[in-house]
Amino acid sequence: MTEPTTDPSAAPYTPDTSAGVTAPRGFRAAGIAAGIKPSGAPDLTLVVNDGPEQTAAGVFTTNKVKAAPVLWSQQVLRQRRLRAVLLNSGGANACTGPEGFQDTHASAERVASILGVGAVEVAVCSTGLIGERLPMDNVLAGIAEVAGALADTPEAGLAAATAVMTTDTRPKQAAVHHPDGWAVGGFAKGAGMCAPNMATMLSVLTTDAVVDADVLDRALREAVTWSFNSLNVDGGTSTNDTVLLLASGASGQRPDEESFTNLLTAVCANLTTQLQADAEGVTKRVVVSVIGAADAAEAKQVANVVAEDNLVKTALFGSDPNWGRIAMAVGRSGAKVDQDRLDIIINGVTVCRGGVRGEDRSTVDLSGPQVGIVIDLGLGEGTADVYTTDLSHAYVEENSAYSS
Amino acid sequence: MTEPTTDPSAAPYTPDTSAGVTAPRGFRAAGIAAGIKPSGAPDLTLVVNDGPEQTAAGVFTTNKVKAAPVLWSQQVLRQRRLRAVLLNSGGANACTGPEGFQDTHASAERVASILGVGAVEVAVCSTGLIGERLPMDNVLAGIAEVAGALADTPEAGLAAATAVMTTDTRPKQAAVHHPDGWAVGGFAKGAGMCAPNMATMLSVLTTDAVVDADVLDRALREAVTWSFNSLNVDGGTSTNDTVLLLASGASGQRPDEESFTNLLTAVCANLTTQLQADAEGVTKRVVVSVIGAADAAEAKQVANVVAEDNLVKTALFGSDPNWGRIAMAVGRSGAKVDQDRLDIIINGVTVCRGGVRGEDRSTVDLSGPQVGIVIDLGLGEGTADVYTTDLSHAYVEENSAYSS
Repeated sequence: MTEPTTDPSAAPYTPDTSAGVTAPRGFRAAGIAAGIKPSGAPDLTLVVNDGPEQTAAGVFTTNKVKAAPVLWSQQVLRQRRLRAVLLNSGGANACTGPEGFQDTHASAERVASILGVGAVEVAVCSTGLIGERLPMDNVLAGIAEVAGALADTPEAGLAAATAVMTTDTRPKQAAVHHPDGWAVGGFAKGAGMCAPNMATMLSVLTTDAVVDADVLDRALREAVTWSFNSLNVDGGTSTNDTVLLLASGASGQRPDEESFTNLLTAVCANLTTQLQADAEGVTKRVVVSVIGAADAAEAKQVANVVAEDNLVKTALFGSDPNWGRIAMAVGRSGAKVDQDRLDIIINGVTVCRGGVRGEDRSTVDLSGPQVGIVIDLGLGEGTADVYTTDLSHAYVEENSAYSS
Repeated sequence: MTEPTTDPSAAPYTPDTSAGVTAPRGFRAAGIAAGIKPSGAPDLTLVVNDGPEQTAAGVFTTNKVKAAPVLWSQQVLRQRRLRAVLLNSGGANACTGPEGFQDTHASAERVASILGVGAVEVAVCSTGLIGERLPMDNVLAGIAEVAGALADTPEAGLAAATAVMTTDTRPKQAAVHHPDGWAVGGFAKGAGMCAPNMATMLSVLTTDAVVDADVLDRALREAVTWSFNSLNVDGGTSTNDTVLLLASGASGQRPDEESFTNLLTAVCANLTTQLQADAEGVTKRVVVSVIGAADAAEAKQVANVVAEDNLVKTALFGSDPNWGRIAMAVGRSGAKVDQDRLDIIINGVTVCRGGVRGEDRSTVDLSGPQVGIVIDLGLGEGTADVYTTDLSHAYVEENSAYSS
């Protein structure tokens, strides 16, 4: 297994954030306001793969409470083929029972009949409030309208990225062109649970490379591991989280698996950075890097527990290099820990060395918006990076003031 | 295994919160200001068991980063005998290396020499900032002073409960007298991690019953499971958490195990309620009750994940009966969940029935300070209660503004 970097600045190709799902050939997209959101903001997106190939892969939420569109899309993805993805904001269609599933099915049927394809070739994603049915009249009328707006332009790609937004403050897209003449593009919304009831992370990725279904699936899982799954704002995984990857083969180029995985990871990592930066209530963007763990799984476990620890997160909000809270979180993580070997480095200062006080904590500069925490367990070769944020007044405000 | 109730109002005996460790016969206590805290507030407590018996049991933090006093007390507790417990606030003596352990040892030696007992009969507990050595001149001088102040009065018990406080706003003690002529008393401080660097939960419990060491150990573990371990404010378990139980046998009464466990649990449950009520930044006191889980362990797992979920906690702060966030937390808990069987009841209103919207959420009254959430998984017989709090602006304020 290769370990692509999750640091986009170190990636071999720099993603272009002015392009997205329509950057690779063979794709059209559109985003419109269908009246699902009471505000009248854009809320319906369609992405169509015009081929010649329709290979597809998907990664879905591990939450055992799954929204209707997740159940539907997991089912249709078994064929590893997708002609189109319909996405709506303004309603999660989660905890809506058999009726909610029927709504998803009816939406896919409508898309399919307009495009002249089968409903099992149409995935559906939803994001918004849990427990409410979608306004299906608006959704079905909107499908005709969004299909009519489909285009392969950058503007259409941006409109698609915009209509999936919930509490996102800006659309998030990225694309990379490989010198060999193929490309990967995509958009994403959400940020690992920052937003009230709108916690969903959705992403649609496209490529015009020729990629077999097995390779596509492996590459997507690998890329997600090193990108979206390394972002942990507050530990949640929503009922609706979905990442879909569609390959059109329109470039005629068949990259090797490693090249494809690397480029895909670069796009996903860039989108992840945009999600982290847009997480609500953020004043600090934090990378928790664990090294020296017994293995990679334990490193990830420690990094996640530290990233989710409210005492660590509030200390960072207060610009307090409080390594005792980090040591406490490491110790309760469940991973193998030898406190006499523990080093903690905050923004370059080794504040804890061998489990005791190291350099003076007052020399740590936490005035900026970027924080790097390195935790060296001194036990083995396991490493992991997790991206997170601080816990601020704005987080509490956003998530408590929201009226359900 | 009996299941004592954790609801003190349902307990057969109502604890007296004006009495504590000196309520049972055979105990003296004291609390003084030794100058460990720069503020000059009380910071040194001594509890002495004058016998005739000195049976003891202890429960310690599961954190793999353990403070020096925890390592010391675990070691001396192997003999299941304690003559005295020394406790200080103003410094955790955690992450202080071999020198910190030496400090603990020296403190125990000083207590032992003044009392004319062995150092291995003296447990030590500390709470406060992590990573700093204690001012040992003040500690050692303070030991002589606190030993001179020992008394078996209610005032001495209250002074002992007061000198362990960190960010607690009031001392927490409770005692119950059994009609058969024996009693259980105790004090506690902390609140499962509300306070910056002072996250430690410490409790000393006393009894004048005649109890064998095996029974004492089992009863303490049982009582802690149904009380302190059901309080989860933010998921932390500190480097210093310690609960000690000392039996003097001074009543001459030997209760049966069940009676003793029940009375002990009533005292611990009352102290737990006081800890919950005093957690910093609390505007709501929340009980998460999971029923119908596959087993008790899964019920506890679900209850803990819901209790720690920041989206649930901020919704409660905002008085928002947002059951979608609860469903999301249940689904990500890792426990067996069938979303079609999930019921969620908030303050008596079944807002989610069979995994879909039930009664109108607007009928839920969340205006008061008490919230009861019942989650019925509909799968089995497993049940668990976890006590928690909301996540408020004051929580962020307290935990970020603290200067390390």
